[in-house]
Amino acid sequence: MNRALLIVAHGSRREASNEEIRRLTERVRAEAGDSYHSVSCAYLELADPSIPEGIERCISAGAQEVVVLPYFLSAGRHVSLDIPQEVEKTQHKHPGVKIRIAPYLGGAEGIPGMLLDCVMEDRD
Amino acid sequence: MNRALLIVAHGSRREASNEEIRRLTERVRAEAGDSYHSVSCAYLELADPSIPEGIERCISAGAQEVVVLPYFLSAGRHVSLDIPQEVEKTQHKHPGVKIRIAPYLGGAEGIPGMLLDCVMEDRD
Repeated sequence: MNRALLIVAHGSRREASNEEIRRLTERVRAEAGDSYHSVSCAYLELADPSIPEGIERCISAGAQEVVVLPYFLSAGRHVSLDIPQEVEKTQHKHPGVKIRIAPYLGGAEGIPGMLLDCVMEDRD
Repeated sequence: MNRALLIVAHGSRREASNEEIRRLTERVRAEAGDSYHSVSCAYLELADPSIPEGIERCISAGAQEVVVLPYFLSAGRHVSLDIPQEVEKTQHKHPGVKIRIAPYLGGAEGIPGMLLDCVMEDRD
């Protein structure tokens, strides 16, 4: 199956922050190997592409399944309401494509260990 | 040496998000073992304790070194300017205490791998 991974970040008025997401996306693409036909990114607001645009690009490129991955730390309104609403707009137009939202980053099991790694990386 | 780890999050008007940080802090404390005399959290804005308050509590409890860990995904203004400014306020009052800021979470080497783990955790 042609599967696409779409990393969704908040988006920023600061272009360097949006660029940081694009660089992250390249690193994820490199690590993903052939698990996904494509790995791309989209933004909830303040930057392009939007989430519906990002999903449409995946579908235009042949994706039969799109996995939307919220690059967020908190299970707040953006993760619980806004992203599902944006996804639904596109799902409605493409009932034959499976679009699912993966757990947001902040809820990942490995976060505490990674925080301790952050401290160690810089240790004197 | 008595070392304290202070996890710094943005802070939210939504109390559940602040509570999520406190729960995360407990998990980090459990994983840290005896590496740190204390593991606590503080907020840049919108919630208590503030960063200066959080650092003062560590020092009052005997910390000789405080490691401030920014729980942020982007190297934006908060990470590059606001957190260092808040830290400096307290460092100025306690020149004998070593206060250092660890790399922010979003810059961690392991983030791409963890994002792929997020997708796998929920996979059908």
